[in-house]
Amino acid sequence: MSKSPEQEEHPRKAFGWAARDASGILSPFNFSRRENGIDDVAIKILYCGVCHSDLHLAKNDWGYTMYPVVPGHEIVGVVTEVGSNVTNLKVGEHVGVGAMVGSCKTCQSCQQDLENYCPKMIFTYNSINYDGTKTYGGYSDMVVVNKDFVLRWPDNLPPDSGAPLLCAGITVYSPMKYYGMTEPGKHLGVVGLGGLGHIAVKLGKAFGLKVTVISTSPHKEAEATERLGADSFIVSRDPVKVKAALGTMDYIIDTVSAVHPLAPLLGLLKPHGKLITLGLPDKPLELPIFPLVLGRKLVGGSDIGGIKETQEMLEFCAKHNIAADIELIQMDYINTAMERLAKADVQYRFVIDVANSLSQYVMS
Amino acid sequence: MSKSPEQEEHPRKAFGWAARDASGILSPFNFSRRENGIDDVAIKILYCGVCHSDLHLAKNDWGYTMYPVVPGHEIVGVVTEVGSNVTNLKVGEHVGVGAMVGSCKTCQSCQQDLENYCPKMIFTYNSINYDGTKTYGGYSDMVVVNKDFVLRWPDNLPPDSGAPLLCAGITVYSPMKYYGMTEPGKHLGVVGLGGLGHIAVKLGKAFGLKVTVISTSPHKEAEATERLGADSFIVSRDPVKVKAALGTMDYIIDTVSAVHPLAPLLGLLKPHGKLITLGLPDKPLELPIFPLVLGRKLVGGSDIGGIKETQEMLEFCAKHNIAADIELIQMDYINTAMERLAKADVQYRFVIDVANSLSQYVMS
Repeated sequence: MSKSPEQEEHPRKAFGWAARDASGILSPFNFSRRENGIDDVAIKILYCGVCHSDLHLAKNDWGYTMYPVVPGHEIVGVVTEVGSNVTNLKVGEHVGVGAMVGSCKTCQSCQQDLENYCPKMIFTYNSINYDGTKTYGGYSDMVVVNKDFVLRWPDNLPPDSGAPLLCAGITVYSPMKYYGMTEPGKHLGVVGLGGLGHIAVKLGKAFGLKVTVISTSPHKEAEATERLGADSFIVSRDPVKVKAALGTMDYIIDTVSAVHPLAPLLGLLKPHGKLITLGLPDKPLELPIFPLVLGRKLVGGSDIGGIKETQEMLEFCAKHNIAADIELIQMDYINTAMERLAKADVQYRFVIDVANSLSQYVMS
Repeated sequence: MSKSPEQEEHPRKAFGWAARDASGILSPFNFSRRENGIDDVAIKILYCGVCHSDLHLAKNDWGYTMYPVVPGHEIVGVVTEVGSNVTNLKVGEHVGVGAMVGSCKTCQSCQQDLENYCPKMIFTYNSINYDGTKTYGGYSDMVVVNKDFVLRWPDNLPPDSGAPLLCAGITVYSPMKYYGMTEPGKHLGVVGLGGLGHIAVKLGKAFGLKVTVISTSPHKEAEATERLGADSFIVSRDPVKVKAALGTMDYIIDTVSAVHPLAPLLGLLKPHGKLITLGLPDKPLELPIFPLVLGRKLVGGSDIGGIKETQEMLEFCAKHNIAADIELIQMDYINTAMERLAKADVQYRFVIDVANSLSQYVMS
């Protein structure tokens, strides 16, 4: 069988699962990884979380997917090789790789440890690397990553349920720090109890906040309060409970990606309250200006976090025993998992048991 | 001629100009002010600025005007009497009164010197005071105000052109401080060159910022750059200049009250940029979420400022020779001034020469 361009462009043989077209269906895929350079770390992948953006990119929902695409940017693995310039990591250590594998290192964002806002940032997959070749993600057996984008994995952080922290975790942690949403005793609302939302509840509690989950699904109440530790729960369509909560929250983390009204959420905030949106609705939302002005409220966004802050977040989660609630799946379950993810039918993150389920599919 | 209820409810005779209905037409009005209490300061009014909200309230644009209404909340005057508890002000001193004359003094906002966000805050006019009577504003000969809402007037601040600082000035100054928009060398965009906008330019320059005015009116360019000291000027409908300015601004102060698109303004901001809206569009604005998330930008509001910060702002303006650019008018010009204000035909604030033009209309 002749080799594809993807198999021949680099010297290192690699294997994963890729989507080939907008059906988003993933199937086994032979490709290649670059030689391990002096600044690089080669990693055998153990686990990879399934982020909602993996689904969007597999299906080309955002219009810029370059097929074939190997998704996956919540990667935990073991170092198998380090370049001569790599001094802080050793073969055999556990490491993590999140949504980024490169940035310009010279712009203002990079100099402020905000590589995630570097205009030349390279995503872990579906991005063009500095050598002109495409990046492939963590639904694969191994990866070669520049040392500056490899996270040390804390000893007591589980490699499977900890994997989603690399995207979902930092996506929540970074705005909580940046917007000053960590003052003990303050009241945090979390809108949407999914991959991001359930970690927001855990981080909120770890920071000493009172946490209220705001959801459209009444059946999530017991889950939110009993298992995840939220202090209270509001069904967003229940006018009585919503009215009772008006003006009671200091911060809200809004994880909803669908188009939805902001006015009720602004109403839940106290004066000087902060509404942080992390979802990516594809149409503009309606923003009423009166509550912003009369209550000095703000609506802000945030996108993952820098490497330094991601490392800090991992240590924080290890210290506070925070990980994602996951459903561990085999690689060949991924298409079913994607279907269930599209229906929000997962509590709360799929993680692929890569090392134990990928090898059986290796094709010559 | 029999006396009206407004003339009889308090012991002190007062005279001003009031609107009687939604025509908004103002005419002479006899009313009364309360006795000067132990915590009160009686003030002979010298000057009063004409704020755009005076026009809105005179015409009942916001639906809650209580006629007759005496507008005016940019008041500069001379102390004529002080209560026994007033130790920091003396008869004969110049003082200012802004948009507030009372607050609960016990809530969290009040305790943080943020009386402007106190839910029981009493506006200088068209509000119900703690004694159950209505407040009347500065288009009048005198006013009695609780000492905690009287500002000391800096010696070298002009009482006429300084008057608009009491509303327009603090409305711009407070968000600049709160949102951290005062770092020298940073780039501030000012949208709309009116009462608020022209003071934003002056404050921005005093803080050491680079200031760009963004306006729909090309003819304001010379005015903005040559007279007010802005560094540059962008016509918001000029796609070439707008494109050249994309991603160049750290902060934007948006003073426009009409419904307008936020997306172009968010595009002008650098990552981590802040867009502060001070106008009050009566319909929601469209807020695109992608730039907020991908650039960690925020949209925030702000409403005047607390008394302590207003005093600080007056000292700052005195030190930096900042005052409004005004057109000084006589009291009987007010209806024409309101018509011109509705067309934005003023550079940049009308101020009524109250003491020199009101007395001739006193009716028995």
